[in-house]
Amino acid sequence: MAATTMKASFPLLMVLGIAFLASVCVSSRSDQDNPFIFESKRFQTLFENENGHIRLLQKFDQRSKIFENLQNYRLLEYKSKPHTIFLPQQTDADFILVVLSGKAILTVLKPNDRDSFNLERGDTIKLPAGTIAYLVNRDDEDELRVLDLAIPVNRPGQIQSFLLSGNQNQQSILSGFSKNILEASFNTDYEEIEKILLEEHEKETHHRRGLRDKRQQSQEKNVIVKVSKKQIEELSKNAKSSSKKSVSSRSEPFNLRSSDPIYSNKYGKFFEITPKKNPQLQDLDIFVNYVEIKEGSLLLPHYNSRAIVIVTVNEGKGDFELVGQRNENQQGLREEDDEEEEQREEETKKQVQSYKAKLTPGDVFVIPAGHPVAVRASSNLNLLGFGINAENNQRNFLAGEEDNVISQIQKPVKDLTFPGSAQEVDRLLENQKQSYFANAQPQQRETRSQEIKEHLYSILGAF
Amino acid sequence: MAATTMKASFPLLMVLGIAFLASVCVSSRSDQDNPFIFESKRFQTLFENENGHIRLLQKFDQRSKIFENLQNYRLLEYKSKPHTIFLPQQTDADFILVVLSGKAILTVLKPNDRDSFNLERGDTIKLPAGTIAYLVNRDDEDELRVLDLAIPVNRPGQIQSFLLSGNQNQQSILSGFSKNILEASFNTDYEEIEKILLEEHEKETHHRRGLRDKRQQSQEKNVIVKVSKKQIEELSKNAKSSSKKSVSSRSEPFNLRSSDPIYSNKYGKFFEITPKKNPQLQDLDIFVNYVEIKEGSLLLPHYNSRAIVIVTVNEGKGDFELVGQRNENQQGLREEDDEEEEQREEETKKQVQSYKAKLTPGDVFVIPAGHPVAVRASSNLNLLGFGINAENNQRNFLAGEEDNVISQIQKPVKDLTFPGSAQEVDRLLENQKQSYFANAQPQQRETRSQEIKEHLYSILGAF
Amino acid sequence: MAATTMKASFPLLMVLGIAFLASVCVSSRSDQDNPFIFESKRFQTLFENENGHIRLLQKFDQRSKIFENLQNYRLLEYKSKPHTIFLPQQTDADFILVVLSGKAILTVLKPNDRDSFNLERGDTIKLPAGTIAYLVNRDDEDELRVLDLAIPVNRPGQIQSFLLSGNQNQQSILSGFSKNILEASFNTDYEEIEKILLEEHEKETHHRRGLRDKRQQSQEKNVIVKVSKKQIEELSKNAKSSSKKSVSSRSEPFNLRSSDPIYSNKYGKFFEITPKKNPQLQDLDIFVNYVEIKEGSLLLPHYNSRAIVIVTVNEGKGDFELVGQRNENQQGLREEDDEEEEQREEETKKQVQSYKAKLTPGDVFVIPAGHPVAVRASSNLNLLGFGINAENNQRNFLAGEEDNVISQIQKPVKDLTFPGSAQEVDRLLENQKQSYFANAQPQQRETRSQEIKEHLYSILGAF
Repeated sequence: MAATTMKASFPLLMVLGIAFLASVCVSSRSDQDNPFIFESKRFQTLFENENGHIRLLQKFDQRSKIFENLQNYRLLEYKSKPHTIFLPQQTDADFILVVLSGKAILTVLKPNDRDSFNLERGDTIKLPAGTIAYLVNRDDEDELRVLDLAIPVNRPGQIQSFLLSGNQNQQSILSGFSKNILEASFNTDYEEIEKILLEEHEKETHHRRGLRDKRQQSQEKNVIVKVSKKQIEELSKNAKSSSKKSVSSRSEPFNLRSSDPIYSNKYGKFFEITPKKNPQLQDLDIFVNYVEIKEGSLLLPHYNSRAIVIVTVNEGKGDFELVGQRNENQQGLREEDDEEEEQREEETKKQVQSYKAKLTPGDVFVIPAGHPVAVRASSNLNLLGFGINAENNQRNFLAGEEDNVISQIQKPVKDLTFPGSAQEVDRLLENQKQSYFANAQPQQRETRSQEIKEHLYSILGAF
Repeated sequence: MAATTMKASFPLLMVLGIAFLASVCVSSRSDQDNPFIFESKRFQTLFENENGHIRLLQKFDQRSKIFENLQNYRLLEYKSKPHTIFLPQQTDADFILVVLSGKAILTVLKPNDRDSFNLERGDTIKLPAGTIAYLVNRDDEDELRVLDLAIPVNRPGQIQSFLLSGNQNQQSILSGFSKNILEASFNTDYEEIEKILLEEHEKETHHRRGLRDKRQQSQEKNVIVKVSKKQIEELSKNAKSSSKKSVSSRSEPFNLRSSDPIYSNKYGKFFEITPKKNPQLQDLDIFVNYVEIKEGSLLLPHYNSRAIVIVTVNEGKGDFELVGQRNENQQGLREEDDEEEEQREEETKKQVQSYKAKLTPGDVFVIPAGHPVAVRASSNLNLLGFGINAENNQRNFLAGEEDNVISQIQKPVKDLTFPGSAQEVDRLLENQKQSYFANAQPQQRETRSQEIKEHLYSILGAF
Repeated sequence: MAATTMKASFPLLMVLGIAFLASVCVSSRSDQDNPFIFESKRFQTLFENENGHIRLLQKFDQRSKIFENLQNYRLLEYKSKPHTIFLPQQTDADFILVVLSGKAILTVLKPNDRDSFNLERGDTIKLPAGTIAYLVNRDDEDELRVLDLAIPVNRPGQIQSFLLSGNQNQQSILSGFSKNILEASFNTDYEEIEKILLEEHEKETHHRRGLRDKRQQSQEKNVIVKVSKKQIEELSKNAKSSSKKSVSSRSEPFNLRSSDPIYSNKYGKFFEITPKKNPQLQDLDIFVNYVEIKEGSLLLPHYNSRAIVIVTVNEGKGDFELVGQRNENQQGLREEDDEEEEQREEETKKQVQSYKAKLTPGDVFVIPAGHPVAVRASSNLNLLGFGINAENNQRNFLAGEEDNVISQIQKPVKDLTFPGSAQEVDRLLENQKQSYFANAQPQQRETRSQEIKEHLYSILGAF
């Protein structure tokens, strides 16, 4: 294993490899070299018709082995036109469902009961695996956009859905059973069952493949279908709204913005619901956050102590910088399919490296635990994050006035750690008057007097 | 990745692929094409002599990748003649042990104590990994049959057992230690230790391989050995019986049929002990159920919301139907050894499909979460099920008078979901007067008047 | 699958394969054939300079597939000279940190606070993933030696560390961010940030690769650096010591020897802190034990019911014997890279086998659950063990006066299990007057009278 010969050439780099950070930097128009960004084109369309679509993001661990621990997490996006319904179905995955925009009615069926909820932007609910549910876009004008984090229960990272609908040419899940079982189950002649619950699938066997393909297209129409204004009114009855006050509900939706933001100033707001605050998230060990960064502002450099965060760009533009590691002998971290590669990994020279990417709506990026990240908004930027391994996660900021871990280093250690003296370091750290969010344009750097002036303006503005 | 070109040809099929259910249907005499059924021949004999045998079912995940999440679960069957004992051993796996038939005494050793239990049909107990135990068939006439769900602690899906017995030619676990260690451990000369605790293995080295093979056969006799009636009487002293009233014991056996069945009518009974009811099952997140379906009856179509259920046919004959999914380009789901196969999977056309199989005693079938299933009894059928991922599992019935999720769909959505009108659907659903279990012979379909008559008969029968 | 043909030749061996234990026995000078011993050369040096080093043990599961369940556990050793500091860093792994020898100050940073602890031999603390910490050797003379069990949060078995230090040629984690982000984050001109917080890395780009390699060597100097006595005094202020009385602290260090030993006699002491006793260990389901075996003494044969124990030799010499299993057709259990191998495994003849190895300081050995083991000290031997899967683990002794499971076997079963009669077995078991630890030299075997004499001596010795 020749540990001693390795020692001479690259000991530090392996586990503590922090060298040459700025010397190499990944920032290309495509996401090929930066495994942390999943451009929106990496969503695969599962279903699409004139009423809406469902899209599934590429498997995280298929993109790069660095996401091995995300192998059982999938990201789904649902979009539908006004006055439509996603017909009843159930999936073999737990879902965390978040409304990004629009207005919905979500109905969840139970053996002897059902719950209907009016959902709006920021409303979040856990839909347990196997729950039969349907989702209506109840708005007259706006598209409904929903983001789902899915955690499959049967196979890691594999999702299967089962539909109840059996309109026209499409078969219902009930068609999976034989004539005899169906007759016994419904205590009814098969002809009647077929007419009322199933499609005329008997005829299908007389068609050739070509016809089947045609039928398939019409089937697509029956997953997301139009629903009349009157029907929506009927479905709205008894629909509850998310509890605006509390986020601690066991089964009802909660709104990400109903609690106070955990970080907030004039540059941005950071809302977060953790497993501690909500029992639905506790079951799955997930946190959900909702971040608003004002145009020209910066979410200061920080890292999550144990959570891996999957962030989706909801609105706006910007960019992120992430500090990661990279094997020197590799062109990128993506698609390391070779099993041997992993074995050799530890013996390979690792370089810490800066990863940058532009952000546009629909893009997804993943922040592994411990990896420092900063996000800058070039227009008002709105991000939605799912944090995996959320329990006891600690967000540590590396800059900012408050909650900045660097300022906690003792004086003699500051002297030893940084090129400047402890006094110089402290003075430098005090230059930043903001915490969590700050102005991203250094040329307009603020002084204390500017701060006071702005404060005055805001007070005056209240009159 | 060409998501847009795929979209046109098979969008719906991938995640929501419900099409052409009835058009293809797997139902063959062999279990080759149906990965959900494990015919009894898929048990491997680990040990067999004239007193009994131990058999281990093929690894679930080796059969098909759809059972990836079952990789750390194994199913064992133990059978022994009257007046026999399975000598003291311990295994590196947690066990859920269920008596299928016969009468046993199970003795569990602790460092300073031991517990003995009289076990009968339906008695269930968790045997933690590493527990030294022995099992007596105390009956004078009946075979003892025991089913174990094993969850290994060292290696996923790999079981190792360690025997204490060292009769005649067979070596004890203690022989694994050197002469010096044994002399120091027992503070005794090796000759005496050998004579009393170990076999005469020293002689073995003088024999050739041929002789060793011969010896091996005689060894087999010493795992399950005869025990006299008098010895059984002695071992029966102080043996406790399973608590017939309570199933909430921390360490004592409980009987699957001691609580009321969760579903019951004249067509069948469904007993189930869940993690919530029993702390032993809570540790392992397992439920155990015991289902009796009367000859000519049907367990109505239903699915488990999150549990994967491993069902063993204990007695009787019948058949099951299960609704699953199938890649169109594949002949079957079994043995997908190719790593690439999995990668391509999502891009492959998936078809939902009906899987059917005949059931005879000793057969095992697996019901993944979310997959609808129905079971029909051609003779009185008795099933034992282990549910993996049991916590918060919800069993949703798709037919039947009560607890039928379909009846919970709101009127306008029924209109949109099914070919018939909501009224027609409701009328159809009301035809089935039974819940959970029903008559499987549709030609003898019951009317309300028949029902009343039968009810009268049963009342009259009480006199 | 030919289960019936296998049955004849090696049924018992497969799951219950206890045969021919003593016939083959692995005990070689190298650790090639014994996968349970990791000689100290299997540590890989990650960093080394004149002030200390960090070493990482080979991946357990890379050594042998029998350690598949240890794939997310790594063992790290840290050693440093007096008056040195390991500069601030954070790692994407939870750590259980144990001081083997020397005196340390550990400082743990929080967003608005910090904790400093004086640590001594046996002090143990959980350092959660992502915690920024630094470690001082505060002693004037002694080396500091620390052992860490690491449980990575991002990737199974992969550890990444991030340093804050940016002295001289080495770059800080902060250098991973662009000039613009840094200027905005610190609200300061880049030149000043660079001067105070970062190294002069701009110059690096003008150098060629040859120069970079040279720089790398000097970087190594800046991970573990000298610290003056005066600085240590300053850092010692407010440093708390481990709670000597209680081991139940949520965040403070506890000492492995502060509670009474769980087993103790004149031949040895066995200290153990379990998840039940300590909430830090409960989070990770780990136990930590500290075993002292006197020269010429023996830790009696025993096994752990469910824990896999990773043992490091801290001081002294000795040897261990472990009873395991071995495939007959294989040369060893190490490096079974072939995927097919595993598939065939169950169909392969398995032999139980004795594994022996000499122990010297720095060696590591792993005891899987259920595997009997005995350890003998040829000089005073001091072992540190981390137990994985610790909850509800039961240590079962196979010899000794007390807590010996064999003595719990009922009389008739003793008759059937062993070649000797139950009376003979009982008499033999009573020869050992010691429990847990005993004299390892059988030639000096003690009689009851010797025992009494020694007891008298020890009483007399008190005067």
